[in-house]
Amino acid sequence: MAEESTTLPSKENFSEWYNEMLWRAEIMDVRYPVKGLYVWYPHGFSLRRSTYNILRELLDRDHEETLFPLLIPENEFMKEAEHIKGFEEEVYWVTHGGTTELDVKLALRPTSETAIYPMYSLWVRSHADLPLKLYQIVNTFRYETKHTRPLIRLREITSFKEAHTVHATWDDAKKQVEDAILLYKEFYDRICVPIIFSKRPEWDKFPGADYTMAADAIMPDGRTLQVGTVHHLGDNFSKTFDLKYEDENGEQKPAFQTCYGISERCIAALISIHGDNKGLVLPPEVAPVQIAIVPIITKNSAEEVLKSAKELEGELKSAGFRVKLDARELRPGAKYYHWEMRGVPLRVEIGPRDLENGVIMTVNRFGEKTPVKREDVLSGINNQLELFRNALKQKASDTIKGKIHSVSSFEEAKEVVEKGVAVVQWCGCKECADIIEENLDVSVLGNEIRSEYIKEENGNCIICGKPSKPALVARSY
Amino acid sequence: MAEESTTLPSKENFSEWYNEMLWRAEIMDVRYPVKGLYVWYPHGFSLRRSTYNILRELLDRDHEETLFPLLIPENEFMKEAEHIKGFEEEVYWVTHGGTTELDVKLALRPTSETAIYPMYSLWVRSHADLPLKLYQIVNTFRYETKHTRPLIRLREITSFKEAHTVHATWDDAKKQVEDAILLYKEFYDRICVPIIFSKRPEWDKFPGADYTMAADAIMPDGRTLQVGTVHHLGDNFSKTFDLKYEDENGEQKPAFQTCYGISERCIAALISIHGDNKGLVLPPEVAPVQIAIVPIITKNSAEEVLKSAKELEGELKSAGFRVKLDARELRPGAKYYHWEMRGVPLRVEIGPRDLENGVIMTVNRFGEKTPVKREDVLSGINNQLELFRNALKQKASDTIKGKIHSVSSFEEAKEVVEKGVAVVQWCGCKECADIIEENLDVSVLGNEIRSEYIKEENGNCIICGKPSKPALVARSY
Repeated sequence: MAEESTTLPSKENFSEWYNEMLWRAEIMDVRYPVKGLYVWYPHGFSLRRSTYNILRELLDRDHEETLFPLLIPENEFMKEAEHIKGFEEEVYWVTHGGTTELDVKLALRPTSETAIYPMYSLWVRSHADLPLKLYQIVNTFRYETKHTRPLIRLREITSFKEAHTVHATWDDAKKQVEDAILLYKEFYDRICVPIIFSKRPEWDKFPGADYTMAADAIMPDGRTLQVGTVHHLGDNFSKTFDLKYEDENGEQKPAFQTCYGISERCIAALISIHGDNKGLVLPPEVAPVQIAIVPIITKNSAEEVLKSAKELEGELKSAGFRVKLDARELRPGAKYYHWEMRGVPLRVEIGPRDLENGVIMTVNRFGEKTPVKREDVLSGINNQLELFRNALKQKASDTIKGKIHSVSSFEEAKEVVEKGVAVVQWCGCKECADIIEENLDVSVLGNEIRSEYIKEENGNCIICGKPSKPALVARSY
Repeated sequence: MAEESTTLPSKENFSEWYNEMLWRAEIMDVRYPVKGLYVWYPHGFSLRRSTYNILRELLDRDHEETLFPLLIPENEFMKEAEHIKGFEEEVYWVTHGGTTELDVKLALRPTSETAIYPMYSLWVRSHADLPLKLYQIVNTFRYETKHTRPLIRLREITSFKEAHTVHATWDDAKKQVEDAILLYKEFYDRICVPIIFSKRPEWDKFPGADYTMAADAIMPDGRTLQVGTVHHLGDNFSKTFDLKYEDENGEQKPAFQTCYGISERCIAALISIHGDNKGLVLPPEVAPVQIAIVPIITKNSAEEVLKSAKELEGELKSAGFRVKLDARELRPGAKYYHWEMRGVPLRVEIGPRDLENGVIMTVNRFGEKTPVKREDVLSGINNQLELFRNALKQKASDTIKGKIHSVSSFEEAKEVVEKGVAVVQWCGCKECADIIEENLDVSVLGNEIRSEYIKEENGNCIICGKPSKPALVARSY
């Protein structure tokens, strides 16, 4: 549906590149007539489907999927004081059904704690019901007043995966926070996106949580994108919503809870981190088309080459690959451009000479050519996709390493945050964070860092000199 | 999460049975604090997932999945006059974001024509873009003032699959209507639910359509449930939303459209039609648990039997079955009850004697026992599930046949509609339909019937005596 065009802005101009990329690779259409709402093109949605299938697969190991209503009555929504404060300016309200004014206003869920926990309080009776671990994948809504941006800052988050768990003790819930962090790490590893977890400062935690661990990806312009959060809710919500259980001794006890979420920002991250000046670059596991077959046709070979290309397509399809034979009447170059833009990991070229030699030519999205014997085509292609995946992962890993720098002075930090993330010694107090944030025009994302890219070495706060831990400091989306 | 209990109301009292069934088999929780909104239990959602996977599989053959926003601005929503008339009393309106009143009110989609077609008018340029066939699976909203009922009459339809197609000619769109009917028949065949298609009367068609074909299932109480609709939209919407294409001769022409939908009523139908006095009865393809293994343990055999049951569970899982080993410390009878309530198609019992004899005992949901050799367990179980599926389908088919009767008089019709569907000669005019509907307290669902269960024989209208076609007449949900 998007039109072909010859120039994509350089990825150096990230914001421009990102916007162009989204419609040229047919991910999102931004022309929907309401600010902050966007339309998924089929190609984009297919990428979303494969990506969320991974998330489902990982969660299904020990969670169950469920579905709660979108509309939350005002009285339930208003029960948890901290929670309201966090969301009151962002909630969309339904006030009318037809021409009738509703007795009770209904909130479009900005997140589902207040829809789910009243039901949990009916469901959980005894310690035998715990732990309870459910998730849902739903649309949620925020009346964003800031600048909106497709997949990143939305008024309708179309693809919010939220998990909500209930446990017998604070420590069990803490253990679940750690499990969720591992699960999210595994998810992002599958889509080759490096992330860094850290503990958000008190003033930046989820409204109603004891503490929040958040995952950040680093975008090409050096700004961080929060791509997942895990909250320890303590017994804050369970007290509000009367979520109790009977323990082994017959005593009623308040339950402890966690919740954790990932939105379509995961798609924004994977597009932004892997893409290049030719378009999308997609990990094979989530690519809507994994292999594009381009027949190289000369005057006398058309029939034979096309027949062979069709056979190959059938064989690859049967083996479970997502494959497209591009038999359009276009120059091969135009086809290469088309599939490169859409991020297809592997292109296969078949021409008359290849038929003679019993080989096909594979070209991965980095442009690397490898001939594969026609008779070993399945293992050959599997192998090429696997090598490509590893190369993509290595590239992303090298890139993030180049964007993170430990600094020991303000001056160094200032330079680093222009292009990436500064690891700064920070004591943990609000006053010092304010000084850092104001002077560098950044956010102090958090400490207690969980990352293979960053060594956890304690030191002294660069502001007050008190004993401190390393903290992530960056401009953020 | 639902508690066990010893009695389920008889299916003779269908309405009571249905309500009890939903929570006892853990399909829906009706205790959510807003009328007409319900919560999917994980077990219900798993059934929904398998069922919608079939729908996706069928659509993916020649449609693409996509996703459009939930919120529709008032000005777009109000463009198509007939459409507004049909929905104006049913639409939920968002009027506020936070404490701010919105400039333009936003409708929660009751269906997505007015969200999708403005975008289609940007996407379709030439005949080469046609046909365009997309679908989405989304939540939609209706401010129902009638009695609401889980899965059947909802304020949030959580699982609306809507397809929207664009074609070059009226006839192409008509062909698509026929294709959609076949697709829906295949879908309902897969879940063993017999349906009857008919053409809805003019006054009952979709607001803005040229005509509407609808699928009805017959519920145990003899009332029909509309479980799918296919609409020929002509060029009504395309004129409103300026959806044109350039034909081969370079001329601008209005496009023609269809749309067709299925909601979670498909789950209501499958639960209601297959279930019995012991609980759910599920077709193997959609059953959340296909096989429940119940070890029959005696004093001296516990260890050996459990080991063997675990091995069997592992083997069946590896083969792709959804299987649960029920090793709880409960009497076997309590376990049978538990799994029967949840509709598990096949139970496998393993006891010490079975181990000696090298067999396992399979018991299908109809209570039929068949021993299967342990060494041939995979093919044996596959076979049993297939036989069960066929028996279930046959049973549903026999049941619907018993509920449909061609009648030639008012008196006959009156008797038939107490328990099922009357096939009545009707000329097609509103006046005669009104007389039939008022006197029998029924709906005239439609004529031009597509059903293997009903012969299409023309005759004379039972009211006015004019030449007529057979029509479906029934009480309906």
